[in-house]
Amino acid sequence: MADEYQNLGVSAMKADVHKAIRVLPPPAYPGAFCHLVVDPWDASQVMAMHADGSGTKANVAYIAARELGGSGWFRGLAQDSAVMNIDDLICVGAVGPYVLSNTIGRNAQVIGGDLLQEVLEGYHGFATQMAACGVEIMLAGGETADCGDTVQTIVVDSTVCTRMPAAAVIDFSRVRPGDVIVGLSSSGRATYETAENSGIGSNGFTLARHALLSSEYRKAYPETYARELDLQHVYRGTLKVGDMLPGTQLTVAEALLSPTRTYAPVVKELLRQLPDAVHGLIHNTGGGLTKCIRFGKGLRFVKRELLPLPPVQRAIREISGVGLPTMAQTFNCGHRLEIYCPAADAQAVMRVATQFGIESKVVGEVVPLRRGGEGNEVEVLLEGQTLEFGPEGLVGA
Amino acid sequence: MADEYQNLGVSAMKADVHKAIRVLPPPAYPGAFCHLVVDPWDASQVMAMHADGSGTKANVAYIAARELGGSGWFRGLAQDSAVMNIDDLICVGAVGPYVLSNTIGRNAQVIGGDLLQEVLEGYHGFATQMAACGVEIMLAGGETADCGDTVQTIVVDSTVCTRMPAAAVIDFSRVRPGDVIVGLSSSGRATYETAENSGIGSNGFTLARHALLSSEYRKAYPETYARELDLQHVYRGTLKVGDMLPGTQLTVAEALLSPTRTYAPVVKELLRQLPDAVHGLIHNTGGGLTKCIRFGKGLRFVKRELLPLPPVQRAIREISGVGLPTMAQTFNCGHRLEIYCPAADAQAVMRVATQFGIESKVVGEVVPLRRGGEGNEVEVLLEGQTLEFGPEGLVGA
Repeated sequence: MADEYQNLGVSAMKADVHKAIRVLPPPAYPGAFCHLVVDPWDASQVMAMHADGSGTKANVAYIAARELGGSGWFRGLAQDSAVMNIDDLICVGAVGPYVLSNTIGRNAQVIGGDLLQEVLEGYHGFATQMAACGVEIMLAGGETADCGDTVQTIVVDSTVCTRMPAAAVIDFSRVRPGDVIVGLSSSGRATYETAENSGIGSNGFTLARHALLSSEYRKAYPETYARELDLQHVYRGTLKVGDMLPGTQLTVAEALLSPTRTYAPVVKELLRQLPDAVHGLIHNTGGGLTKCIRFGKGLRFVKRELLPLPPVQRAIREISGVGLPTMAQTFNCGHRLEIYCPAADAQAVMRVATQFGIESKVVGEVVPLRRGGEGNEVEVLLEGQTLEFGPEGLVGA
Repeated sequence: MADEYQNLGVSAMKADVHKAIRVLPPPAYPGAFCHLVVDPWDASQVMAMHADGSGTKANVAYIAARELGGSGWFRGLAQDSAVMNIDDLICVGAVGPYVLSNTIGRNAQVIGGDLLQEVLEGYHGFATQMAACGVEIMLAGGETADCGDTVQTIVVDSTVCTRMPAAAVIDFSRVRPGDVIVGLSSSGRATYETAENSGIGSNGFTLARHALLSSEYRKAYPETYARELDLQHVYRGTLKVGDMLPGTQLTVAEALLSPTRTYAPVVKELLRQLPDAVHGLIHNTGGGLTKCIRFGKGLRFVKRELLPLPPVQRAIREISGVGLPTMAQTFNCGHRLEIYCPAADAQAVMRVATQFGIESKVVGEVVPLRRGGEGNEVEVLLEGQTLEFGPEGLVGA
């Protein structure tokens, strides 16, 4: 991939991470989207414990609170953290109950108790909202550590545990050439959401922040970026958090802090109505449109009918000239959930999304390998340009 | 408490944190040491998900690796992170199986894949070691995030999930005046340990680091402390990581990075042999000898027969003149586990500790309140000085 992301000290493809984790015991279902273990209390069940967080999106909340004043900027980070877990878990068919434990690491000198409270209220609010649509999230406490010597601002992480029958695990083994890929929009307003969602999610924020935000913030907020970075890559955009985001009714702060949408209510209903139709599910976070490449065997994923790029992602590209390959490998580019199903089931699948007010579309299909060799292939048509990816990244770069 | 810790940007008593968490639903057992929820799959069981990490101990590993070279410095952080969870869980009587998910946040510019691998090998090694003494820890994967804009070096966190029969929960409600407090040494070498343990644990490290380590590190490693700190409080000690720690055969790096001892094998055996003797268990982490003050009602904890202060904790006090109240409220001061039991059972309890090569002692007793009023009382005799604590901290300061 282009070095736009590596300049910011992030290994988006995480080659060294994938190598390092080989020292751990393998999961019970190596092909599944999440790491599953055999439930130690009941061998007919599997258990997942999934950890993730809001990442450097928290630094946008920090700048917004400092620049714009008022309260509530930190609230959505809880949903971001929870959904980065839960929407990975729905991809193996685990639709709850979920038990959530939260971890906050903060620099107590810049993050006061009022902001902690916003985050914790955010967890409570999100759990309440999900309960109303039949998705149970039990809050099981957590840990707040004052560790300003390590954390410059705040880390909002959580771990979600769930159990499910081993027989019901979706592990992508049924995905085959001929299946279509239904994409569910990352933006708009779902029936269970209280405001319009910008579609940004909660990954790619190191790139998003530095690409969009004004260089004024370099000097004002050194605590929001790594001291090792070459300053030319830091906050190289033009927008301030209070500016309106072009093409939207949202400020930049509102657009960037839009809480990550969960698709859990949709997938729960989908698996109830159409249990056999769902061959595979992919949550497009880090890796973006190429996230699928690690799942299934001998498959070529062709995505040429994408939903429009949400305005916030379009702005990232336009303001800092982020290349199309990096966009495709970093952001959801319009849909954050992919449902792999037989072509004959696509209409029924999309009807379930519509039921929840979420736009959906057949964005692509699964075909036999074209180039052959080891690993899957991904083809993407983005802004009129065809991009080809293999397991090592962009092909022919 | 003294402001020695607040100068370092840490709220050891966490008043603002305790206030903030009131927005979350209360636990099923408000008096228990860990947050327990009713198991959503089986109402006769309770479930705990517990999150914690190695904290700023990781910054000692970072400095040691940079100053001394070689490998392996990061390995023990995994055990630190795991034990900060597991040894809280044993205090409710939850002795496994445990399912562990790990979260690493790193600045990829200073923490390479080799160091990640050390951490992950550490989890694997610790789980293997525990399996050999009958404590089951399943490793359920994890998440590594590159977030150098938030994390200056590395955060090594984990979350541990376990289930147990509701009827077996130890929630401190049986602790009463007349009980004695058996302390289990934090140092020495247990039968299941491969090296001498310095007794340091994995809390209080912001204070320990700055009190012990040489001011040379101020300039050399700005990425290991918060930029907001007043420099006079940063690395105000005299020792370098390669120096020998007075009174030990260990270097400062070895003493500070000594992996946190787990008492899980001991407590598992204790609950098997003497299930009725154990009225309460306290894991002395943040809060130190006053950790117990939040548990039970109308109790006065008198601890006048402590084990000797381990050399590493003595050095913290001597080199930087850390006050006795701060020592008592921050470090374990000799024992990291307290077992509350009838006086008649103390010998039998201590025999179990001996079985595992761990020194133990009746360090104190539970008596009726003396001062009266709201909340419990703690009296500590430390280095010939009697200290009195209430729920708000040191009394008569």
